[in-house]
Amino acid sequence: MSIEANIDDQTGEELGYLMKKLMSEGSYDAFFTPIQMKKNRPAYKVTALCNPLDQEKITKLFLKYTSTLGVRYQTLNRTIMKRHFDSVETEYGVVGIKIATYEEIKKYSPEYDDCEKIAKENQLSLAEVYQLVSNEWQKNKEEVI
Amino acid sequence: MSIEANIDDQTGEELGYLMKKLMSEGSYDAFFTPIQMKKNRPAYKVTALCNPLDQEKITKLFLKYTSTLGVRYQTLNRTIMKRHFDSVETEYGVVGIKIATYEEIKKYSPEYDDCEKIAKENQLSLAEVYQLVSNEWQKNKEEVI
Amino acid sequence: MSIEANIDDQTGEELGYLMKKLMSEGSYDAFFTPIQMKKNRPAYKVTALCNPLDQEKITKLFLKYTSTLGVRYQTLNRTIMKRHFDSVETEYGVVGIKIATYEEIKKYSPEYDDCEKIAKENQLSLAEVYQLVSNEWQKNKEEVI
Amino acid sequence: MSIEANIDDQTGEELGYLMKKLMSEGSYDAFFTPIQMKKNRPAYKVTALCNPLDQEKITKLFLKYTSTLGVRYQTLNRTIMKRHFDSVETEYGVVGIKIATYEEIKKYSPEYDDCEKIAKENQLSLAEVYQLVSNEWQKNKEEVI
Amino acid sequence: MSIEANIDDQTGEELGYLMKKLMSEGSYDAFFTPIQMKKNRPAYKVTALCNPLDQEKITKLFLKYTSTLGVRYQTLNRTIMKRHFDSVETEYGVVGIKIATYEEIKKYSPEYDDCEKIAKENQLSLAEVYQLVSNEWQKNKEEVI
Amino acid sequence: MSIEANIDDQTGEELGYLMKKLMSEGSYDAFFTPIQMKKNRPAYKVTALCNPLDQEKITKLFLKYTSTLGVRYQTLNRTIMKRHFDSVETEYGVVGIKIATYEEIKKYSPEYDDCEKIAKENQLSLAEVYQLVSNEWQKNKEEVI
Ligand code: NI
Ligand code: NI
Ligand code: NI
Ligand code: NI
Ligand code: NI
Ligand code: NI
Ligand code: NI
Ligand code: NI
Ligand code: NI
Ligand code: NI
Ligand code: NI
Ligand code: NI
Repeated sequence: MSIEANIDDQTGEELGYLMKKLMSEGSYDAFFTPIQMKKNRPAYKVTALCNPLDQEKITKLFLKYTSTLGVRYQTLNRTIMKRHFDSVETEYGVVGIKIATYEEIKKYSPEYDDCEKIAKENQLSLAEVYQLVSNEWQKNKEEVI
Repeated sequence: MSIEANIDDQTGEELGYLMKKLMSEGSYDAFFTPIQMKKNRPAYKVTALCNPLDQEKITKLFLKYTSTLGVRYQTLNRTIMKRHFDSVETEYGVVGIKIATYEEIKKYSPEYDDCEKIAKENQLSLAEVYQLVSNEWQKNKEEVI
Repeated sequence: MSIEANIDDQTGEELGYLMKKLMSEGSYDAFFTPIQMKKNRPAYKVTALCNPLDQEKITKLFLKYTSTLGVRYQTLNRTIMKRHFDSVETEYGVVGIKIATYEEIKKYSPEYDDCEKIAKENQLSLAEVYQLVSNEWQKNKEEVI
Repeated sequence: MSIEANIDDQTGEELGYLMKKLMSEGSYDAFFTPIQMKKNRPAYKVTALCNPLDQEKITKLFLKYTSTLGVRYQTLNRTIMKRHFDSVETEYGVVGIKIATYEEIKKYSPEYDDCEKIAKENQLSLAEVYQLVSNEWQKNKEEVI
Repeated sequence: MSIEANIDDQTGEELGYLMKKLMSEGSYDAFFTPIQMKKNRPAYKVTALCNPLDQEKITKLFLKYTSTLGVRYQTLNRTIMKRHFDSVETEYGVVGIKIATYEEIKKYSPEYDDCEKIAKENQLSLAEVYQLVSNEWQKNKEEVI
Repeated sequence: MSIEANIDDQTGEELGYLMKKLMSEGSYDAFFTPIQMKKNRPAYKVTALCNPLDQEKITKLFLKYTSTLGVRYQTLNRTIMKRHFDSVETEYGVVGIKIATYEEIKKYSPEYDDCEKIAKENQLSLAEVYQLVSNEWQKNKEEVI
């Protein structure tokens, strides 16, 4: 489900802090959308996506950590790809690979956190690390998904 | 409920005028979200939040004052904090205080219009007025909500 | 209905290509909304509006042409104006006119593609072409809608 | 010239108030741009365009009415069209017309404030008023600019 | 240099048309930035980047194809990477490769138009084509830049 | 000075990583602005503000960690308020206070990092901590700036 509020009486600093809270307390995802409200007010819509079982918990985060007097809910249906985890060895260490499938569609993506760690330790750009991982993955995959 | 339309064939001047209409004719709130449409068109999504009883009235505002050929509806469930109104006396006049509670969560905020009036009359910034009101409120509150 | 996904691991070039796919494969409309995600990631929400009968087809476009692992659905109710098509003759050629009505509200708008063609062929701005069409339309309309 | 600051520790309400101040104290124009700053902070860049003679005055508005600790300046060169004012009589009253020329390019636009007044008094949309004014203007112009 | 104008009295359709004009008449690049102007007006800043020798030509495009009464200029200094063009053969055809270098920094990127063509003809996503090209490039490069 | 590039061929994940690099390698500030580029591409403008002495260093971060083939520079003049650091004791610990002055204008703001620490350790919202600090500061200030 999604939980939302429009915020025009809170600072960016406070919303940056809220983002961390929303993510660490169990939202699937959280994001800000720039909007324009009445009386020339630049504002942000805050959205959290979460499990319906967490509605009460996430609602209370909104009410405690933002200035809003209420939140709006929407129930969302979803189609989710099947996920499967694998890994490749690179010269800089092991990187997890997420493989996703839906009927004939197949995608894979390296785990962000593994790649970031390698990028940092080796002064590489993320793009360079993804390239490296991708080369390694292409060589070795014998994946029957 | 929310009523929405994407607008790519109307000017910002016209949308600024629409904002006033939506607010003065009974929307709870109205806001613009910048979006990017087909054929390289920069556009705006217009959203009005309103009481379901006003659906017909607000729909007609959209159809009359925008170029859209249709509007989209969503029903939104909401959690709303309990509200209670109080006031404080400052050296520049009385300011309303909105007190909101939900279980153990408690927030208060000064009324914007009162603060704006004081800011204007005394060449203060809004932040200075809020500070002042907040000091006064902290001193005197004996609020048992 | 609307089909959506938040994208933080794909490039603008890829999303520009996706826009064409979504439009050419039967979405009513498609648009991007700038959003801000966790870990300082600037991102885009991709939304397609489509007939519920096309849900499966459009879902597969998202899964094949974006990096997302899932999509979210919302069912939207709509109010649509009645449409009626007419045309005017201008010195540069015929231009279609879309006439829309809802109770006492009546609007008309020239067809974009016809106007773009005239603009291109005659080195005019779109605004000049709309003006021209509008003059012609005002003169000749005897429209009983 | 342009005067700018990035604001992440102020509310939309305060920025809405700032907008009025900037416009009433002599900026040519003022606008907000949504930006994304460090630490997941959604923010706004505030820009005022003004006469270089007003640099000190507008700078002080920024320092007094925003939370910023400094402002950035840029000197901008401009090309401006020649302007000339005229008017048309409509059934609802007189409307000013701004005529702008630059070499062979010629544009005209009705005065927004006149049109807004007519729209309000006669329950018309702005688009309807512009149409009306435009028709009248087309009929009567004998303008040798 | 950059040439800019803020537009609040023109439609997204007209700006989409302007984009094509700006690109086809010799701008290096052109882009729209969502901004928020006075009187609750959602608007767009239009920016074109161009060679200073084209200032007059691009200025006239702004004055003819937008509603603005003036444009603002800024002179921009730039650091540009050295570019070098190469190509790889894939099973679907030849793809150009742009190689860019600046001191010890080296990057390459496949030509978008070549990749788009392959994607379209073979029902692939752009990401799949880039992956393919990248594999081929990694295998064969013996590039001494 | 400001250093900028428009990015349409890089992901949000990569830009989130870039933000950290720009801040940790000595930019004064860095921010993303959503823009809309040619061919329906949603994109981001990346801006770093830095000391002119760091131009070469920050330029190389752009060239290494983004896909851009060049960067644009602007020299910015600035007016900066005088800063002075103080602190207050609260029941939860000491908080730094930044006091800024420019002629008769005077502002103070609590240090974000101190407040965030207190918020985290005591399960408070940032707004609650700022309120607390502000109360304490109002009581004790005898500041002759
Ligand atoms: Ni409010
Ligand atoms: Ni496996
Ligand atoms: Ni249209
Ligand atoms: Ni009370
Ligand atoms: Ni991801
Ligand atoms: Ni007819
Ligand atoms: Ni700050
Ligand atoms: Ni005249
Ligand atoms: Ni205007
Ligand atoms: Ni070569
Ligand atoms: Ni490119
Ligand atoms: Ni001191």
